[in-house]
Amino acid sequence: MSSQHFDIVVLGSGPSGQRAAISSAKLGKKAAIIERMRELGGVCVATGTIPSKTMREAAIHLSGLQQRAFYGPSYRNKETITADDLRHRTQLVMAREWEVVRAQLTRNNVEIFVGNGRFTGSHSMVVEHHGESQELTADYFVVAVGTRPYMPTGVEHDGEVILNADSILDIKQLPKTMTCIGGGVIGLEYASIFAVLGVHVTVIDQAKELLGFVDTEIVDALIYQLRQMNVVFRLGEKVESVKADRSGGVPRAITTLASGKIVVTDVALYSAGRQANADMIDGEKAGLNVDKRGKLTANSRYRTEVEHIFAVGDVIGFPALASTSMEQGRLAALEAFGKRDDRLVPEIYPYGIYTIPEISTVGATEELLTQESIPYEIGVARYKEIARGHILGDETGVVKLIVDARTRRLLGVHAIGTGATELIHIGQAVIAHNGTIDYLITAVFNYPTLAECYKTAALDASNRIAAIQAVDNPAHAKAIPTAQ
Amino acid sequence: MSSQHFDIVVLGSGPSGQRAAISSAKLGKKAAIIERMRELGGVCVATGTIPSKTMREAAIHLSGLQQRAFYGPSYRNKETITADDLRHRTQLVMAREWEVVRAQLTRNNVEIFVGNGRFTGSHSMVVEHHGESQELTADYFVVAVGTRPYMPTGVEHDGEVILNADSILDIKQLPKTMTCIGGGVIGLEYASIFAVLGVHVTVIDQAKELLGFVDTEIVDALIYQLRQMNVVFRLGEKVESVKADRSGGVPRAITTLASGKIVVTDVALYSAGRQANADMIDGEKAGLNVDKRGKLTANSRYRTEVEHIFAVGDVIGFPALASTSMEQGRLAALEAFGKRDDRLVPEIYPYGIYTIPEISTVGATEELLTQESIPYEIGVARYKEIARGHILGDETGVVKLIVDARTRRLLGVHAIGTGATELIHIGQAVIAHNGTIDYLITAVFNYPTLAECYKTAALDASNRIAAIQAVDNPAHAKAIPTAQ
Repeated sequence: MSSQHFDIVVLGSGPSGQRAAISSAKLGKKAAIIERMRELGGVCVATGTIPSKTMREAAIHLSGLQQRAFYGPSYRNKETITADDLRHRTQLVMAREWEVVRAQLTRNNVEIFVGNGRFTGSHSMVVEHHGESQELTADYFVVAVGTRPYMPTGVEHDGEVILNADSILDIKQLPKTMTCIGGGVIGLEYASIFAVLGVHVTVIDQAKELLGFVDTEIVDALIYQLRQMNVVFRLGEKVESVKADRSGGVPRAITTLASGKIVVTDVALYSAGRQANADMIDGEKAGLNVDKRGKLTANSRYRTEVEHIFAVGDVIGFPALASTSMEQGRLAALEAFGKRDDRLVPEIYPYGIYTIPEISTVGATEELLTQESIPYEIGVARYKEIARGHILGDETGVVKLIVDARTRRLLGVHAIGTGATELIHIGQAVIAHNGTIDYLITAVFNYPTLAECYKTAALDASNRIAAIQAVDNPAHAKAIPTAQ
Repeated sequence: MSSQHFDIVVLGSGPSGQRAAISSAKLGKKAAIIERMRELGGVCVATGTIPSKTMREAAIHLSGLQQRAFYGPSYRNKETITADDLRHRTQLVMAREWEVVRAQLTRNNVEIFVGNGRFTGSHSMVVEHHGESQELTADYFVVAVGTRPYMPTGVEHDGEVILNADSILDIKQLPKTMTCIGGGVIGLEYASIFAVLGVHVTVIDQAKELLGFVDTEIVDALIYQLRQMNVVFRLGEKVESVKADRSGGVPRAITTLASGKIVVTDVALYSAGRQANADMIDGEKAGLNVDKRGKLTANSRYRTEVEHIFAVGDVIGFPALASTSMEQGRLAALEAFGKRDDRLVPEIYPYGIYTIPEISTVGATEELLTQESIPYEIGVARYKEIARGHILGDETGVVKLIVDARTRRLLGVHAIGTGATELIHIGQAVIAHNGTIDYLITAVFNYPTLAECYKTAALDASNRIAAIQAVDNPAHAKAIPTAQ
C-alpha cells in the first residue's frame, strides 16, 4: 500500500471541506481532500442546497407565482407541471457546480482522492476505492464528512412513496398530496416548493414551534403564508410510523401519529433529523468520540478532543448551513497553522432559509434581548408600502429591524419575502460596523428597490424611540436627530 | 379670489416635491403641494420610473429571458407578445402608487391643490383649475416641477410612429424594428426592454461614449450584451430629422443622420434630452432665472438665486433620479427651516439604471481616482463563478470593487447583472462606514446568493494588492492579513 504525507488531510469535499483545504493551500501547505462520492462538492451539490434551491427556482418560475398579483391567483406559467420540468435545470446547475469545485481545488493544488477515508491511527488514514487502498498521513486532519438522511425504524423508506431529502429529487411524477414529517429547514423548504405547485401538503412536527432560532413574527408570517397555499400544520404531534400502502391500485403513504390520527397522502417526505457520517470513518482509531447520531463535538476553534483533528460543517450540527460551514472550514485551517486572527473572525452570521417566501435573519432577536434585559425597539417595513413590492407583485414581504433604544445602533434584521436572503447583507454590514438607524434614514437607496425597506423601517424605529424618549424626558425628545 | 398662507408651498408632487412637503410637515410646518396633473406623483408615477420599470419587469417575464440558460436562446414564455401584454400590469401598479402618494401626503396633513401653479410675486402664487383661481402665499417655496420630453424641430412626434418617453407607453402594437435617438438612461432602458422582446433596435447618439458617469468597463459590458440582443449602435452621429413616411401602406419612421445615413424602422423613440417645466410657472415674477431648456439653477443647499425659493429634482438637472430627487426634497425642507444637520447628509449616492441587464454604481470610479492620482486596485467577481448565478441562469453579471491600495478601504462598487440595483447597497453601507475589504473577505454571506460576489471580488482585490506590496516591500507582503 502506497503512502503519502500531507500537512493537512481533509475528509469530505462539501463547502466546509473545500474551504479548509483551499485555505490551507493558500497558506502554502500541502493539502489533500478525500471524497467518497463520484463527484466533488458533497451533499451540498449532489442532493442538498444546490438541487433544492434550483428546484425551488424552477417551481417559482413554472408556477407563475410572481405573476399572480397581475394575472389572478389561479395563474400558472405552465399548465401541466411534471417532475421532469422541475428536474430539468437541476442537472445543468449541478454539473456546473461540480466543475467549479474541481477547478477551485485543482487551481489551488489541493490533491484529490476519491474513495472512503477511514482513520487507522491519530495521524494516519486509509482511502479505499474499487478495492485499492492508499495510506495518507498528515500533521492535521479536518473531518467534514457531513450527514445523510436519518431514517428511524417505523419509517419504511422506499424512494417512491416514502421519500427522504435524497430520494425526493428523483420522484417520477408530481404528487397531488404530500406529508412532510419534520418541520425544520429542509422540511419547510420542500413543503413550500410543492405547495406553490398546487400540491396539498401536511407538515408534521413534534415541536409546537418551528424554526426556534428565527424571530417569532417572521416564523408566524411564514406559517400564515404557507396556510394560504393550503399547507396544513400538525404541530406537537409525534409520528409513530410512516408506511406505504400498496393494497389499492395506487400506492399511498400512511403516516400514523401517536395521537391516533392518520394522514394519507400520495407521498411522504421524512426529513426529521439527519444522521451524521462520522460513524463511517473509524474515528475511535484516532481517539474521536462519535455519538450515536454519528456526530462529532468541536470547540469554538473547531478542534475535537484530539487536538490536531478538527471537525467542521454539518457533522458538528447546528447551524449546518453551507455559508457557516465554509467559514468553519476556513477558521479550522487558520487555527491549525497558527494563523487565526481574531480581528478577522465575524461576530455575526446571517441565516438564509429558502422557503417560499424566503427568510433571512442576522443579529439579535427580540427573544434574546428580552432575556438579556436589553431595551430595544423594532422598526418594520412591508413590501406593500414600497414601489418595488408593487412592481414585483409581492405584497407580503416584511423587513424588521431590531434597534438599541438608547444608542440607536442596529442590532438585528429579520426578513421574509422576495430577495430576503440577499437584502439581509445590507443590515449585516451596518451591524458589523456598529452603525445606527440614522445611517439608514439618511442613506439614499436606488428607487425602486426592496432595499428602501431599510429606510422605511428605520424611520418607523426612530418614531417609536422618539415616543419612548418623550415619556422619559419630554425635553430630550425634540433634541434627537430626525432625519425625515 | 380666496387666499391662503402656508409656511411652505411645494410646486410639483413627484418624488422630490412629496419629500419636501412631508419633511416640512414632519417639522410641524403648514405645507401645501400643487400638482397640475390629474393624479399625484408626477412623471415618476405617470409616465416615467414606475411604468417603465413595470414594463421592464413584464418584458423580462414574458420574454422568458431568465429561463434561456435552461431552455435555449430561442425560449419565450409567451409565444406572441402584444403591446397590451406589456401594459397590463403598468395600469395596476400606477394606480397603486397614486394611492400610496395620496395616502402619505394626507396622513401628514399636507394640503393638496390641483391645478397650474404660477408665481405672481416672490411670496405668492396663483393656482388655476377649471377656470377657478386661488392664491397661495408662503414663506418658502420649493419648485419641483420636473421635465417633459424635449422635441426639437425636425422631430415630428405623432405618438404613433415617432414616439417620445410619454407616448411610447401607449403604443398599439409591438414594432419589429425601432430606432432610439438618444442613448441616455431613458433611451437605453427602452432599447433593452424592446431588444429583449425580439425587436431589432438601433441606438443613435451624438456622443461617442454613453453614460459618461458610469464605470467604463460596466458600460462596455452593457453595450456588448445589448449587441448580443441585436442592438446596433450608431455613436458620434448627429440626427438631422425624424419623420414618418406614410407613402406606403404601413407608416415607417425615417431617421436621417448628418453623415448621410438613413435609418428606416417601424417606430422611432426620441429621448435625447428633456425640457424642464420651469418655463410654465412665471418664474420671472418671483425673480427666478429660467434657462431656455426650462431649467433652474440651485446651489448645493438647493436654494435658487431667490433665497427663500428652492429648486429640487429633475428641474435642476443631473442626476435626475427619483432616489436622489427625494433626498434633495428632504434637504431643501430641512435647510428652509434651519434644521439641516450636515452629519446626516449622505456623502455617497448610488445610481441605478434599469437597463436589461441592470446597472448600479456607488462611490469612486477608476476614471476619477486616476485623475486625482489616488492609487487603487480593483477586485472583480463574475456571476458565472457564483452558485446563485448558475441557479438564476445569469452568467454575465459582474461586481467590481474599487479599493484604496494603501488602506484597503472600499471606495466604489460598480455592478451589472440581475439584482445589481439591490446588491449595490451592501457596498454602499461598507463605504459609508469607512469599511475595508477585510470585512467583505471575512463576512459570512448566505449561500447561494449573489451577495457572495462581494467576498470573491474582495479576495481578488486582496490578491492584487498583495502582488503590489510584494514589489514595494517583499517583507511586508507576508505581514498583511490574509483572511483566506
